[in-house]
Amino acid sequence: MSQVFDVDHVLARLTLEEKASLTSGSDFWHTQAVERAGVPAVMVADGPHGLRKPADDGDQLDLGDSVPATCFPTAAALGSSWDVDLLTRVGEALGRETRANDVSVLLGPGVNIKRTPLCGRNFEYVSEDPVVAGALAAAIVRGIQSQGVGTSLKHYAANNQETDRMRVSAEVDERTLREIYLPAFERVVTTAQPWTVMCSYNKVNGTYASEHHELLTAILRDEWAFEGLVVSDWGAVHDRVPALAAGLDLQMPSAGTRPDDQVVAAVRDGSLDEAVLDVAARRVLRLVAQSLPALATQDTYDVDAHHALARDAAAAGSVLLKNEGGLLPLASTEGVAVIGEFARTPRYQGAGSSQVRPTRLDAPLDALRAAGADVPFAAGFTVAGGPAGSDDELLAEAVSVAREAGTVVVFLGLPGPDESEGYDRPRLGLPENQVALLRAVATVNPRVVVVLANGSAVSVSGWHDLAPAILETWLSGQAGGSAVADLLLGVRVPSGKLTETLPHRIEDTPAFGNFPGEGGVVRYGEGVLVGYRWYDTRAMDVAYPFGHGLSYTTFAYDSITASAAGTDVTVRATITNTGPVAGAEVVQVYVRDPEASVQRPTRELKAFTKVLLEPGESREVSFDLVARDLSYWHPGLHRWVVEGGEFVVEVGASSRDLRGSVSLTVEGEPLWGELTPMSTVAEWFAHPVGGPLLRAALVPPADTPPLDDTMQAMILQMPAKVIADFGLSGFDRDVLDTLVTKAAAG
Amino acid sequence: MSQVFDVDHVLARLTLEEKASLTSGSDFWHTQAVERAGVPAVMVADGPHGLRKPADDGDQLDLGDSVPATCFPTAAALGSSWDVDLLTRVGEALGRETRANDVSVLLGPGVNIKRTPLCGRNFEYVSEDPVVAGALAAAIVRGIQSQGVGTSLKHYAANNQETDRMRVSAEVDERTLREIYLPAFERVVTTAQPWTVMCSYNKVNGTYASEHHELLTAILRDEWAFEGLVVSDWGAVHDRVPALAAGLDLQMPSAGTRPDDQVVAAVRDGSLDEAVLDVAARRVLRLVAQSLPALATQDTYDVDAHHALARDAAAAGSVLLKNEGGLLPLASTEGVAVIGEFARTPRYQGAGSSQVRPTRLDAPLDALRAAGADVPFAAGFTVAGGPAGSDDELLAEAVSVAREAGTVVVFLGLPGPDESEGYDRPRLGLPENQVALLRAVATVNPRVVVVLANGSAVSVSGWHDLAPAILETWLSGQAGGSAVADLLLGVRVPSGKLTETLPHRIEDTPAFGNFPGEGGVVRYGEGVLVGYRWYDTRAMDVAYPFGHGLSYTTFAYDSITASAAGTDVTVRATITNTGPVAGAEVVQVYVRDPEASVQRPTRELKAFTKVLLEPGESREVSFDLVARDLSYWHPGLHRWVVEGGEFVVEVGASSRDLRGSVSLTVEGEPLWGELTPMSTVAEWFAHPVGGPLLRAALVPPADTPPLDDTMQAMILQMPAKVIADFGLSGFDRDVLDTLVTKAAAG
Repeated sequence: MSQVFDVDHVLARLTLEEKASLTSGSDFWHTQAVERAGVPAVMVADGPHGLRKPADDGDQLDLGDSVPATCFPTAAALGSSWDVDLLTRVGEALGRETRANDVSVLLGPGVNIKRTPLCGRNFEYVSEDPVVAGALAAAIVRGIQSQGVGTSLKHYAANNQETDRMRVSAEVDERTLREIYLPAFERVVTTAQPWTVMCSYNKVNGTYASEHHELLTAILRDEWAFEGLVVSDWGAVHDRVPALAAGLDLQMPSAGTRPDDQVVAAVRDGSLDEAVLDVAARRVLRLVAQSLPALATQDTYDVDAHHALARDAAAAGSVLLKNEGGLLPLASTEGVAVIGEFARTPRYQGAGSSQVRPTRLDAPLDALRAAGADVPFAAGFTVAGGPAGSDDELLAEAVSVAREAGTVVVFLGLPGPDESEGYDRPRLGLPENQVALLRAVATVNPRVVVVLANGSAVSVSGWHDLAPAILETWLSGQAGGSAVADLLLGVRVPSGKLTETLPHRIEDTPAFGNFPGEGGVVRYGEGVLVGYRWYDTRAMDVAYPFGHGLSYTTFAYDSITASAAGTDVTVRATITNTGPVAGAEVVQVYVRDPEASVQRPTRELKAFTKVLLEPGESREVSFDLVARDLSYWHPGLHRWVVEGGEFVVEVGASSRDLRGSVSLTVEGEPLWGELTPMSTVAEWFAHPVGGPLLRAALVPPADTPPLDDTMQAMILQMPAKVIADFGLSGFDRDVLDTLVTKAAAG
Repeated sequence: MSQVFDVDHVLARLTLEEKASLTSGSDFWHTQAVERAGVPAVMVADGPHGLRKPADDGDQLDLGDSVPATCFPTAAALGSSWDVDLLTRVGEALGRETRANDVSVLLGPGVNIKRTPLCGRNFEYVSEDPVVAGALAAAIVRGIQSQGVGTSLKHYAANNQETDRMRVSAEVDERTLREIYLPAFERVVTTAQPWTVMCSYNKVNGTYASEHHELLTAILRDEWAFEGLVVSDWGAVHDRVPALAAGLDLQMPSAGTRPDDQVVAAVRDGSLDEAVLDVAARRVLRLVAQSLPALATQDTYDVDAHHALARDAAAAGSVLLKNEGGLLPLASTEGVAVIGEFARTPRYQGAGSSQVRPTRLDAPLDALRAAGADVPFAAGFTVAGGPAGSDDELLAEAVSVAREAGTVVVFLGLPGPDESEGYDRPRLGLPENQVALLRAVATVNPRVVVVLANGSAVSVSGWHDLAPAILETWLSGQAGGSAVADLLLGVRVPSGKLTETLPHRIEDTPAFGNFPGEGGVVRYGEGVLVGYRWYDTRAMDVAYPFGHGLSYTTFAYDSITASAAGTDVTVRATITNTGPVAGAEVVQVYVRDPEASVQRPTRELKAFTKVLLEPGESREVSFDLVARDLSYWHPGLHRWVVEGGEFVVEVGASSRDLRGSVSLTVEGEPLWGELTPMSTVAEWFAHPVGGPLLRAALVPPADTPPLDDTMQAMILQMPAKVIADFGLSGFDRDVLDTLVTKAAAG
């Protein structure tokens, strides 16, 4: 395979049938080979947080039957680190494993926005915020692709639930799509050029993503200059001919020969331009060409080093929600009891195609016991795949263990089957038996640390006050067990922050009432008010806000400044570690636009950085915001606009722990559109040319009494045409039509 | 005009130009006459709560310049009476005044749903609930039309805001339209046949209501069998040719000769079928024919009797929100002080086209003083149109009056300009100066009664605890002043209940974030969760719930039963007046459908009745619910369906004061649709024919291990086609296509 693979040369030699065949897989995981023309098949395999390469004799329905690979923390945990460098290193490791297994594309990362905590696949996604999701996923892509293998940025687009995912139409308005659901894809594409983008199963505003020309071509290619290949999610293509025309390149997996035949027939009967097929086939060939160098080498990876990296990542992505009285870190394991089956049978990844067969698996209980001292344990409850037991007996045993302990660490979390690809979560809260266990334990021992394992937000309502300390570890991969021991014992210092709000109740969440939709449609009725944008704009109480996370040290924010040069804004702050140990702080920059022609969220994250500081150390951080960070997507002008006026820049430790704000006045761009007869009087008056014209035309006869305020307000909102139709004061349609012409002439 | 006016005969004699002219007004208020053919013009005039017939020399922009007429309470107040008989009598009085003034159609009632408390025109509308709005508006229509004059049911449809009302597109899904925004129109049309329906200004899902064939013809005529005429809101027609084709009959007001000419040209060039024009012209002629008998007689009305009826209605529509310690009724005016300019300069109606020039006007202060004893008064604040003053001085004066009083009645409300047609309300709360006044008064005298005057929900946050008693009078018409005195003094007993929820904050309201829209579009993102459907389903705290209202007596609910025969449900309850005075109770019946394929609100009002009881008196009330009351609008089947299973019938005094509930099992109808390749495995399995077929086809080879629960759940949600495309176990597209054919054959 060392000879040069000349894409154009190969393409020119292919028959129509061969080109058509290239736009489909040959089986579940391979592209089609054309041996005659020297085109090998290349292999792709599931990600995103580890390689799921099916074992040679693998059954497609047995997702666990794959070659061993490092199970890194899931995206939910990785994202909570807010650590671009770390995620690049995790990406590099993922790339090495992919390459070592002769796989050319790892199917990830996933950057769908967490619209509802109930989305079954949230653990595979990064955040409710597009800036966080985009910046961190770009780091992973850069890391993976640095190893000569590709990624598949997924699932494009508006695939924010599993219920009816293969058919449902996400009904989402243009501004919401642009401001919430597309920017993470945009950021990854424009800054990291993933080899592939995976289109999602669902429809977007009535059109399957696999056939969505605006998404696949107008936006992805023409606007964002995507250079790679668009692959379908597995089974997302229902008619490859329109899909190719829309911009899809590769249907996966193979659906037999029927779709290839349809493509050939469509080219023959003229309904599909062969040039369109050529473009897709060329992209598949280019993917092959990109893949060949790595396939030509024999590679290995360091299993131990990757496990250690997985441990670093798991620690960095855990979020210390609460730590009353400095209960954590524990001085030692002396007097510590551990309760909860998850300490022995860890929940460390979710179900579905992302399920990795780990190279090893650290259980928290083992890791704590390894730290010295005998650590008593009681299971407390059973879990799927763990030892059996009766709830009552397990609870009684746990209470007796807790009673004797100095401190109790209780490992709780969602049952494994709650979080899977393919269907959505049945509940926001923990199972009742776990809450009952915690209540019983807390009754006999108030020194309770709760360690949570779950792939997306859970409610803490009903049990929050029982635990002075809560550590959210998400689904933290194969080394999560040792990482959590490190954190509990202060070997490591928590530095993760929430990339998703923890709401009190499911009824509080933005998509409640609309999710999961009905009649084949899910209405994105909350518009841009997703995640903290919803809770903050509606001024709702939440359990823990977006961006929240404690450390074993504390940080002071000083000298917060922001200055504008045109639409460029420089933000600075000095962060000081004011506590006893080294620690890292995630500094967050939010922007608010207090007055705009559209409903803007109360605040939106625009930048962040993670800064590691020794005790007493200070560092200045700075952020460069650009026009886009002040903009909204104008639904009438169909582009990003900066509406001039006041902007408020807020710097803080969470969306609700703002340490300083600066108000700036920024000059915007003129936003008036073309005047028409249906433009309102107010719109006419705001127009530099049309305004004076209409004012002059509407002057009432001299003896008319002045209009009262109410009538004036009514008239301002009336289209000029309606005034003309009423025919008052000699202002009629002919006069108005003249004004329209004059205003257009300028 | 006593000769017979034969519509068909006249129509046959008209030229094309004459027929076209009939589909437009001749001026602001008259239809077009065709003198040659003996067609007189008839006059229409604004309502809805009184006749606004412009004075002979009236200026169209001076809405106050009209002939005197009784200003009945606004719809907000009338609706709060929940009294069908009363509203019929008010309708009769409105009809008499209309007839006496030779007006043929009174432009009302308005039944738009109160989607947001900020809609400027809410005072003209009845409720946030379609059953209340429909039942009460039907009573008004029956009353008015019993007098030989017509009504105009308005504004059809989805006109739920004033902002950009002449252009904005209400984006509302089919189910929401059918369940929330259309049923009040449907009920009035099907049970009271208004002479006219007025189409609204706005677009519905992109199409102007005036050109909306589905609304104006498919639904209004074909489904509801509307027999009358569709008139445009004033200025709502932008192109009469497509409007006629859609089902509009009459463009108002005149927009000059241009539209008539366009209609003639369209018929001539074949783009408009003359038969369509004939239908519209015939309906206008029919309206003329309907109008002639009343115009042929000389009529008068009894101004005093109508004022007395307005007083009855104002009292019946006031809602006693709170009455701690039985502060109300006042024993007498002895020791009572009155504060608030609204007591002297009452707010009794809203601004815009509904503004009536009253025949007289009762001020609360005068009415209280007439009851005996000298009643001290302090203005406290100034209002538009009232005497001038400085806030500080007025406040000081009020405090000094309050300090000397036994009880203080404080008249508060929204400033007049806050509530108008043509623009929306700027705020949910009372003005700051009024709250400051109340706070100062309450500091010196805790015996505070607040009397509110406002046309739609106000927030009580920030001042609610200052007043032991709160009486909401809405905008209660010209006799509201004497009615409120009656209520305060116990001459009458409050019996009104809220037809709209009083929320704590604007951020809590369902349309917040979507209202008033942007870019020409307002998304009805909350779907069917409007009003209490939102607050109850989201389990939110509210200030006062839908249906709430106190009395000076109390009521017990006993023997609550519900029984089903098929989909007919009979509900019974025995209501007893358990207090010291005669009073009326509004008994409410709600239905809940705990499990359904669509997201149903937690509860929905389906029936109500108002029952007047002497002290100690008991009466059994009963309600007959029918299939429709259990149904939802199926978004896939496009019709009402009863989904079988459990239904809960709740009977109570408000949506949150439920006195009993009965669970019933009702047999529904089969809801499966046609099976297609894209039907999910779950849908196949639920189908009586397709289920067994697919199960048989999907049997795995004998040596396959059973699927785990997660994989089974995933597969149930997959379309059969995707399984077939995957080609597992020999189940492919050809096999599937065969099953589809077999399933269709049954």
